[in-house]
Amino acid sequence: MTSPTTDARTRSERAQAALGALPDVTMTGDEQVVVLLYEGLTALDLVGPHHSLASMMGARVHLLSPGPAGQPVRTDLGLITPTGGLDGCPQRVDVLLVPGGGDGTAALLRDERVLKWVADVGERAEVISSVCTGSLVLGAAGLLRGRRATSHWLTRDLLRRYGAIPIDRRVVVDEPVITAAGVSAGIDLGLLLVARLRGHGYAAAVELQAEYAPEPPAGTGTPALAGPDLTTLLRELNAPLVENLRST
Amino acid sequence: MTSPTTDARTRSERAQAALGALPDVTMTGDEQVVVLLYEGLTALDLVGPHHSLASMMGARVHLLSPGPAGQPVRTDLGLITPTGGLDGCPQRVDVLLVPGGGDGTAALLRDERVLKWVADVGERAEVISSVCTGSLVLGAAGLLRGRRATSHWLTRDLLRRYGAIPIDRRVVVDEPVITAAGVSAGIDLGLLLVARLRGHGYAAAVELQAEYAPEPPAGTGTPALAGPDLTTLLRELNAPLVENLRST
Repeated sequence: MTSPTTDARTRSERAQAALGALPDVTMTGDEQVVVLLYEGLTALDLVGPHHSLASMMGARVHLLSPGPAGQPVRTDLGLITPTGGLDGCPQRVDVLLVPGGGDGTAALLRDERVLKWVADVGERAEVISSVCTGSLVLGAAGLLRGRRATSHWLTRDLLRRYGAIPIDRRVVVDEPVITAAGVSAGIDLGLLLVARLRGHGYAAAVELQAEYAPEPPAGTGTPALAGPDLTTLLRELNAPLVENLRST
Repeated sequence: MTSPTTDARTRSERAQAALGALPDVTMTGDEQVVVLLYEGLTALDLVGPHHSLASMMGARVHLLSPGPAGQPVRTDLGLITPTGGLDGCPQRVDVLLVPGGGDGTAALLRDERVLKWVADVGERAEVISSVCTGSLVLGAAGLLRGRRATSHWLTRDLLRRYGAIPIDRRVVVDEPVITAAGVSAGIDLGLLLVARLRGHGYAAAVELQAEYAPEPPAGTGTPALAGPDLTTLLRELNAPLVENLRST
């Protein structure tokens, strides 16, 4: 691989200086972002927000797993290797992120060791966040009591059992907790977190870099958009999963 | 983990039958989807379309790597384990997908062995697809001559060197090639591929399941939306990468 030319490097340095000079932008930092990996997580729940968070120069994203050190975690994409175990969590946590999953999340909701870890890390995290059914994990760890929160539309009502107030929105902020709706909502969450940590100008740049000008082909991304027939169908298809989550 | 109740299973079977009965839906199949993994790919380029493709019941998604068998591939998310090597490619390929990446894609553009593999598999694939700079790989493999195609907005012009006609659109179809723009456009691509393979009703269901009703926070997802200042800034920031891709 050829190195970039010196000319290009110089130009890039100029551009970095320019971006850093925008009124509200923090160009570099050392944020500690902690993501909980677990068997059966939905890869897009993880990769959506990760893409934005990892774009913050100087930030460190820890992918921590409850399993044995070094052992890859099975996701719906296949195997992803964590960067460490739960004991690899830094003392200072700027963002805790719990992605969702299917039956793997249900298993997590029955794992007292992990729930205690989430509670402990959540206690000291500056921001506590989740995507999709990840909010149920926050709830089971006792982090959502009295808070407004969202989840995948299929599981939003389950938030009540944890003392949370379910809100039908894509991203819900109730400091210090930020929850995102199903799967693809993690992309929106990631950009909001970058705006918060590095300023709106930085997040706008990340949004352009990710070319996030979506054109959902079917326009059926929420129950309201999809209509009752398709929504009922999906409720039926997902009934075993929702029942598994409910019975934890 | 508790098993879903029998009741739930029965309901799910009914729902599957209902979805399968929609006019244009093919409920199950055995599509062979082949994805090229390589060092330095952008995880979201891969996971966006994968999420939809893997939701097709019965389909098989092969994540193939040019590297040694079993060795995880380094992405911007960390390590992802391929399902096989390039020699693990099935004879029948319904979809070939090449995700993009940064300098890793530039390295790939210099790797004659992989480009020949892409050319060979592309020759027999029913659909040839890419996300982001993945279209440059298709081009270098000779698959875009005379075809309309897209890429990340930063690299769209580079398509000309491969005899392609750059189109400023999120997803461009020029049979049998379907190219998607930068990073997040892979989600739109994945849903279009599902619609094509399993029918629009199936794709609409996947879109609802992924809760794909995006709300881009900054509204800066294309150069036109972002305006000239931010666009120029990103061009400068990415100048070393674009130069690296251009010099292959």
